[in-house]
Amino acid sequence: MHDGKRRLKWQGEDVLAFLRTDFPQAFRDGWDYTVEHLTTRQAIVRLHAHDSQLRPGGTIAGPTMMHLADFAFYVLLLALHGASARLSVTTNLSISFLRKPVAGDLVARVEMLKHGRTLSVGAVHMEDAEGRVVAHAEATYHMGAAEW
Amino acid sequence: MHDGKRRLKWQGEDVLAFLRTDFPQAFRDGWDYTVEHLTTRQAIVRLHAHDSQLRPGGTIAGPTMMHLADFAFYVLLLALHGASARLSVTTNLSISFLRKPVAGDLVARVEMLKHGRTLSVGAVHMEDAEGRVVAHAEATYHMGAAEW
Amino acid sequence: MHDGKRRLKWQGEDVLAFLRTDFPQAFRDGWDYTVEHLTTRQAIVRLHAHDSQLRPGGTIAGPTMMHLADFAFYVLLLALHGASARLSVTTNLSISFLRKPVAGDLVARVEMLKHGRTLSVGAVHMEDAEGRVVAHAEATYHMGAAEW
Amino acid sequence: MHDGKRRLKWQGEDVLAFLRTDFPQAFRDGWDYTVEHLTTRQAIVRLHAHDSQLRPGGTIAGPTMMHLADFAFYVLLLALHGASARLSVTTNLSISFLRKPVAGDLVARVEMLKHGRTLSVGAVHMEDAEGRVVAHAEATYHMGAAEW
Repeated sequence: MHDGKRRLKWQGEDVLAFLRTDFPQAFRDGWDYTVEHLTTRQAIVRLHAHDSQLRPGGTIAGPTMMHLADFAFYVLLLALHGASARLSVTTNLSISFLRKPVAGDLVARVEMLKHGRTLSVGAVHMEDAEGRVVAHAEATYHMGAAEW
Repeated sequence: MHDGKRRLKWQGEDVLAFLRTDFPQAFRDGWDYTVEHLTTRQAIVRLHAHDSQLRPGGTIAGPTMMHLADFAFYVLLLALHGASARLSVTTNLSISFLRKPVAGDLVARVEMLKHGRTLSVGAVHMEDAEGRVVAHAEATYHMGAAEW
Repeated sequence: MHDGKRRLKWQGEDVLAFLRTDFPQAFRDGWDYTVEHLTTRQAIVRLHAHDSQLRPGGTIAGPTMMHLADFAFYVLLLALHGASARLSVTTNLSISFLRKPVAGDLVARVEMLKHGRTLSVGAVHMEDAEGRVVAHAEATYHMGAAEW
Repeated sequence: MHDGKRRLKWQGEDVLAFLRTDFPQAFRDGWDYTVEHLTTRQAIVRLHAHDSQLRPGGTIAGPTMMHLADFAFYVLLLALHGASARLSVTTNLSISFLRKPVAGDLVARVEMLKHGRTLSVGAVHMEDAEGRVVAHAEATYHMGAAEW
């Protein structure tokens, strides 16, 4: 496995610092994240609860979960490749919503399923503040620039 | 087809009025929508361009497109069922990103593929301000309340 | 659009002749196909009914529909590129099963959503012998050889 | 969790015996399976290598992997519910093909993500005979009869 020898280019704080500048909408309205765990194969990213994510009834909106699934995988790619991963784009994202999350933080754990030359595929497992699985997603990123 | 005799419970303006109250985060940051076309089988929903949707380089963020795909289908379900559709939840959404959209409005056309007792499935075709297809999505909603 | 000037390399009969040799399992057990329509953007492929596809109760098995969705898109890629498309591989396929088909032929209509340098994306609409929509799929092919 | 107290209705051999009668096409052409592991949350199902699954170049056809993903989840549902699960139908299946498998057995491990009243969602991890991950799928089954 060519991933075996791979080292992380960036740690979690480097990735978030880059994203605050490069992808400021992810932090709009006071949204914030912690990278809780990071290896060459896995990232665990927490989205801190914020009123702007809530739906009436005290649950979290689906698009917030879609955003977090995509964001967590992007964190892992940035950690592996550094700034050059900013050229990668999501080509496909499929998400199943399993239960309504309770109001509170969301934690996404993304695992790299394939880290290829042109395509990377990751699976995302998402839990709510009570530790229940609320969504499961699979995302494909096209590595590299321009047209795909 | 049981849909043959179905009438719309609500017109586009009714749906948007309901959503402004019931789902205010969809209108946060000045985001706004027009329902351009509505039948029992199809809805065309325009998301008006807003700075908060942009990514550096002048393109529109993937989560904005995921949100619009989901939102457009929800508009169609509300038009068909009125307020009772507020209890429906997305159970699966799969989206392919086809090209980077130019900065500007996005237009989503959702077509009902199946309008069942428990599950409804729709396909969403999304174009950017230059009329190029930028994304294609398929969403499943579970009709009705509580646990699914 | 670079597709505008594109011509078909192969007609339907050329594609099927190639597949009979190159992909014989698709024709196992007496399975057979007709390419009913073919343009640079669309292929309509009929799978002729065969007992080996049936499930008890007289419906058609899900994997048969998955196979046909994938196969129809492969037909379109072969028509566009000729034998060189044999190196392309499916990287993702997402299918929604909408209704149980009646026993009989299945007809898949695939439309090219994106025909890119590295990835092609198609949407597949599938009807049963009574003309009811029974499945809707989206497939991504990676164009070209070897590792992706 | 209502699954906590759940027991398996059937063991692996009961499930396969039922399927040999009820779903004979899955065993056509000499195809055969072993249920290697079974709990209320997980099933591991091996598809024994057979010439009829191969593509030229000695790899296994995509539809074979789609079939196995779907089949493995069906095994788990039958183990949990017994014969009544025969009325359940796949409503959505999304699969990513990650690497070309080598010729040989395929092993699918399905994990139950949600076991709900109306919908069950499972994730499937598939390895080839060399232990490399070759596909990852997510499937949704609608529990129960008739129309959905």
